[in-house]
Amino acid sequence: MNGKKNERAINFGAGPGQLPLEVLEEVQAELLAYKNAKVSILEISHRSGDFKKVIESAQARLAQILNIPDNYKVLFMQGGGTGLFSAVPLNMMTTGTADYIVTGSCEFLIDPLSKFCGNFDGTYFQVLGHRKRQKKQQNTVKSISSYQKLANTQRFLTDQTGISIQMRRIEFHDIPETNGVPLVADMSSNFVSKPVDVSKFGLIFAGAQKNVGPSGVTIVIVRKDFIGTAMKICPSILDFAVVAEGNSIHNTPPVFQIYFVGLVFEWILKNGGVEGMEELARQKSQMIYDIIEKSNGFYSCPIKENCRSRMNIPFRIKNDEKLENDFVSGAAALNMLQLKGHRSVGGIRVSLYNAVTLDQVKQLSNYMIKFYEQHKN
Amino acid sequence: MNGKKNERAINFGAGPGQLPLEVLEEVQAELLAYKNAKVSILEISHRSGDFKKVIESAQARLAQILNIPDNYKVLFMQGGGTGLFSAVPLNMMTTGTADYIVTGSCEFLIDPLSKFCGNFDGTYFQVLGHRKRQKKQQNTVKSISSYQKLANTQRFLTDQTGISIQMRRIEFHDIPETNGVPLVADMSSNFVSKPVDVSKFGLIFAGAQKNVGPSGVTIVIVRKDFIGTAMKICPSILDFAVVAEGNSIHNTPPVFQIYFVGLVFEWILKNGGVEGMEELARQKSQMIYDIIEKSNGFYSCPIKENCRSRMNIPFRIKNDEKLENDFVSGAAALNMLQLKGHRSVGGIRVSLYNAVTLDQVKQLSNYMIKFYEQHKN
Repeated sequence: MNGKKNERAINFGAGPGQLPLEVLEEVQAELLAYKNAKVSILEISHRSGDFKKVIESAQARLAQILNIPDNYKVLFMQGGGTGLFSAVPLNMMTTGTADYIVTGSCEFLIDPLSKFCGNFDGTYFQVLGHRKRQKKQQNTVKSISSYQKLANTQRFLTDQTGISIQMRRIEFHDIPETNGVPLVADMSSNFVSKPVDVSKFGLIFAGAQKNVGPSGVTIVIVRKDFIGTAMKICPSILDFAVVAEGNSIHNTPPVFQIYFVGLVFEWILKNGGVEGMEELARQKSQMIYDIIEKSNGFYSCPIKENCRSRMNIPFRIKNDEKLENDFVSGAAALNMLQLKGHRSVGGIRVSLYNAVTLDQVKQLSNYMIKFYEQHKN
Repeated sequence: MNGKKNERAINFGAGPGQLPLEVLEEVQAELLAYKNAKVSILEISHRSGDFKKVIESAQARLAQILNIPDNYKVLFMQGGGTGLFSAVPLNMMTTGTADYIVTGSCEFLIDPLSKFCGNFDGTYFQVLGHRKRQKKQQNTVKSISSYQKLANTQRFLTDQTGISIQMRRIEFHDIPETNGVPLVADMSSNFVSKPVDVSKFGLIFAGAQKNVGPSGVTIVIVRKDFIGTAMKICPSILDFAVVAEGNSIHNTPPVFQIYFVGLVFEWILKNGGVEGMEELARQKSQMIYDIIEKSNGFYSCPIKENCRSRMNIPFRIKNDEKLENDFVSGAAALNMLQLKGHRSVGGIRVSLYNAVTLDQVKQLSNYMIKFYEQHKN
């Protein structure tokens, strides 16, 4: 069996995203019998010594990658970002209010905010976009100093306990200074793609399915003083204290996904760590942004330069849907998949998560240049 | 590569349990590229047409296996049984109280009951064991007529809205008649191991990791009139209405596990359906119980005959811990694993989930007979 390696295309999907081939091959090779356990990782008990090693080494590798301080705990939870959108207020909203910076659609936030924040319609606000039911994606962020200004207001300091930053097409290139107000970030899109000063956050979370593994597990890095402060109505699977006490196996965990992200963490360490991922992300994204910039408006990226994402690059082609469809189908014919933009904005979207190789991005660049030459007039 | 098939032992573990080798091999073979998708099932988008087919065919196969009526919906959720212990009251507890029949330890129930039932300390009761913090496992169930009697009391009919049955070492051989009170069952241990009249239940749930797949997904079969009745404080990932409306992809689902259980459902249909599984379970469990019965007390099963489980068989060997350890290590030397009893009760536990073959149980039988001959005096 060749393992179907030769049938693989390049996956530029926004998530679930492409995974490192080396890791996929390792998982495939030992799928029937994990190391010396004589059973598959899919059959192994989450209370076994073998799995204890799996989970502890995954935590240790992540701590090494992000240089996580000792007063933080790594949890593996379930329910995706949506689960965490509930878990964050359920565990951290001691004053009943919070400020949210939403750079994408906030449809997934309305539900938990209306349930678990004291006065959603009043005190709650978004820095970006409409106050409440913002559907449109954003193309810019305010300058960091705007956040700092907000963070300095009395109201902000006394009333709020959290800020959630949801990064998709937009990436923050600096961390807002909140002067002690706990900062919470949804880093699903750019998790372990660059060094992060974890000590500036109260909590970081990330769905695995973009940069570090298959869907089905959410990685949480939480400062220990936010463990044990959940509201009484918090279900135990979302209670950081319960999850932390059982080292993420209080309820049956997604064993396979935790095993998989542990292998991806190992792969990151072997490939230059998070600094290596950052340099790679810089090179890959620069290649695409350069072509866009030099195309005289043929390709256009709506995102302001100071907050462009290195992970997800949206662009339009002459604002021409027909041309964009041709681009997507032409790419598919060359085995480059998932380039269609998000249904809410249209156009093209290229996702360049950690596992997308430089060589793969070169192939896309070549195609973009050729397509430009063919259709520029 | 041989896929490490020859390194596999027999796994009698209580869950996660052994999975069908044929399914594991199919998953392994296509792990790098799912069918014609050109990407791994681990990388596929949960919003893709390919995955839509995966989830819909899994639902259709389960509907066929259990002959699920049209007024029920199959959901794939996360958080294991523990998640459902919260989700059930959060969605179904319209009167604030419920009766629970707990046949194992109730430690996982205390938390959600104290949070989501109106008067946990008063009205709530367990039919079996201590009223509140029961830690001991039970060895018997009351007769079905006892439940029927309970179900006929005015209090039961007017105040209660649900019964949860947690089956582990004990198995109900009939369904209690509740005279219209919605019955909820945790069928993790014996899911799709025998035909079930789904119409007698308000809801059935099962963690996949015993009979149908790897850990990380919980299968829910819910009567449609219980969709849309959640309390306001129910997080969206546990709200049946939200999950049902998105056909289980409102939040990012565990794609791999749903794919896997779909393949196991297909495997069940190919192997005689749930009737085939029932006959196999009867033969396998009978083989072990027969040896126990004929051992003149050398092997002893503490469970009363009318509620013995075909899936999990606990037994002691002369109540002698040293002998039991010898039994477990002798079995391991013969590649029969995970026979140690639950830490709370000791002894031996044999789990005989669907994927454990008749031939494998014969090997264990032979070992049990030999061990008996060697140590009976």
